[in-house]
Amino acid sequence: MSNRVTAAITAVYGYVPEDVLTNERLEGMVETNDAWITERTGIRERRILGKGLGTSEIGVRSVLALCEKRGIDPSEIDLLICATVTPDHQFPATANIICDRLGAKNAWGFDLMAACSGFLYGLTTGAQFIQTGKHKKVVVVGADKMSSIIDYEDRATCIIFGDGGGAVLLEPNTEGLGVLDSSLHSDGGGCQFLHQKAGGSVKPATIRTVEAHEHNVYQEGKSVFKFAVTNMAEVSALVMERNGLTADTVTWLVPHQANLRIIDATARRMGLDENKVMINIAKYGNTTAGTLPLCLWEWEPRLKKGDNLILSAFGGGFTWGAVYVKWAYGA
Amino acid sequence: MSNRVTAAITAVYGYVPEDVLTNERLEGMVETNDAWITERTGIRERRILGKGLGTSEIGVRSVLALCEKRGIDPSEIDLLICATVTPDHQFPATANIICDRLGAKNAWGFDLMAACSGFLYGLTTGAQFIQTGKHKKVVVVGADKMSSIIDYEDRATCIIFGDGGGAVLLEPNTEGLGVLDSSLHSDGGGCQFLHQKAGGSVKPATIRTVEAHEHNVYQEGKSVFKFAVTNMAEVSALVMERNGLTADTVTWLVPHQANLRIIDATARRMGLDENKVMINIAKYGNTTAGTLPLCLWEWEPRLKKGDNLILSAFGGGFTWGAVYVKWAYGA
Repeated sequence: MSNRVTAAITAVYGYVPEDVLTNERLEGMVETNDAWITERTGIRERRILGKGLGTSEIGVRSVLALCEKRGIDPSEIDLLICATVTPDHQFPATANIICDRLGAKNAWGFDLMAACSGFLYGLTTGAQFIQTGKHKKVVVVGADKMSSIIDYEDRATCIIFGDGGGAVLLEPNTEGLGVLDSSLHSDGGGCQFLHQKAGGSVKPATIRTVEAHEHNVYQEGKSVFKFAVTNMAEVSALVMERNGLTADTVTWLVPHQANLRIIDATARRMGLDENKVMINIAKYGNTTAGTLPLCLWEWEPRLKKGDNLILSAFGGGFTWGAVYVKWAYGA
Repeated sequence: MSNRVTAAITAVYGYVPEDVLTNERLEGMVETNDAWITERTGIRERRILGKGLGTSEIGVRSVLALCEKRGIDPSEIDLLICATVTPDHQFPATANIICDRLGAKNAWGFDLMAACSGFLYGLTTGAQFIQTGKHKKVVVVGADKMSSIIDYEDRATCIIFGDGGGAVLLEPNTEGLGVLDSSLHSDGGGCQFLHQKAGGSVKPATIRTVEAHEHNVYQEGKSVFKFAVTNMAEVSALVMERNGLTADTVTWLVPHQANLRIIDATARRMGLDENKVMINIAKYGNTTAGTLPLCLWEWEPRLKKGDNLILSAFGGGFTWGAVYVKWAYGA
């Protein structure tokens, strides 16, 4: 028992669209094959959101179910942060659209852009509002419709990304549970290796940028891989150690799902057995800001109050980090 | 004197590009005239950032000068939040690019998207990190290169918006100075009146969206005006009153610069004399997330320690709010 107020995750919910894009289907679209994809990335299929639907669709479905499960009305939400790189529009914020569709009429909200680390950044940011007492109910959404910025003629990227995401509810806790520590980092020098060339203020959309496919994900996979392996592993070990945790007392590693080999390297650096690592990349691919809530949602039935979770991510920016969460409830 | 840690603004700096787009120049571009623009909006000129330069340029120039003025090295910054609707790219975050160019190598950072209320939202968010003790130096940038999303054939919008912005440094304070209260709101129902149609996940960039000018600001001015007048005035009065402030004890109203008549209505609702209102819309137009730091920067020489400032904004989302800041230093 402590007097310090922490931000506990009191509910989680995820959503993935029904349409499944398998490796087999990709074989018919680009020069690739199931064995190659599976060996290099661990991905077997990913989900695709229908045309005309934006990322808000994932947010609305997740948060509605989240509220039902927790037994609260959306109007009780004080703040909704939507971490995404694929907002419905550049403005207004997708967070505002989600709240409107939910009837969360007392919530303010904004979009947080930090690529694959967006959910970790949003979780830490949301937690501050709970810790200061400013808010009692903060929802953090991590969601992306990556298919909206993927070139399905580029076999290097179209095999990796998928659509989906989820949301968590943060509420005050005085038992020492919830978001207890975070170590977050950015290095804009990584821009050259992973970015969207056009559609921003440097290079607004023109017919030429569309023809050149410059509105899609550009990634130099090998460089990103190298940075990711090192940084995600190091920051995860750092947060584990500085909180007095060991491979025995960490219950779960919740890693960003970009590549199975990056996940394995992180678990190894932390000395964790494979059975303590949440992995669902085979089913959903890399949903960018969506991966971590999708993992928490899937594993939630197995989580117990007091479990020590290390959430960790690396991605575009570069951005990376790890967050220590003491789970606040049993299934 | 209080033990409570608050987030004080300890420095401010702004930047506007040199290129001036006057009403006279606009007369040669679209069917409009200086008298009409001045009467309806109060705007006489706006600044335009050069082609190929992104919003990060405004951020870098502001934050470099900010650090010099405060006598700190960019490497001392813990977190940089960039409020913008015109990021350099959709990813990585413009915050990451700014930090990289500054040498702010110990800072993490993200972009916060909330249109014209972005700076207020960012200020409140940054303040939480100071209040919890998580960080000692947080920079909040508000900047937009609106010219990158303006259709210079649309006389309804091209007369309003300009490029520019600025930044503030937040540091812990125990004298009761700094960000003391905020009331922030969103209503996604406003999306229909003010948005960017294409370029997001609902409608990705295609040749057709470019040809239809759908990557530019779409605004139904009259509807936005009506909501803005009411909401900006009401929330400003609310924050004034609930902090025991009166027209006498408020030193300055720092309003978002969207339209002179919205500013006047807000000042009137608060009972403030015109000489207590920061207004520079004539020179810069509406720089979206940039307006408030540009005001603070320009008026800084006249601000005194203990001055009571009400910052207030309304814009795309809809998003709106007011923040009470007790100024922490003399010029």
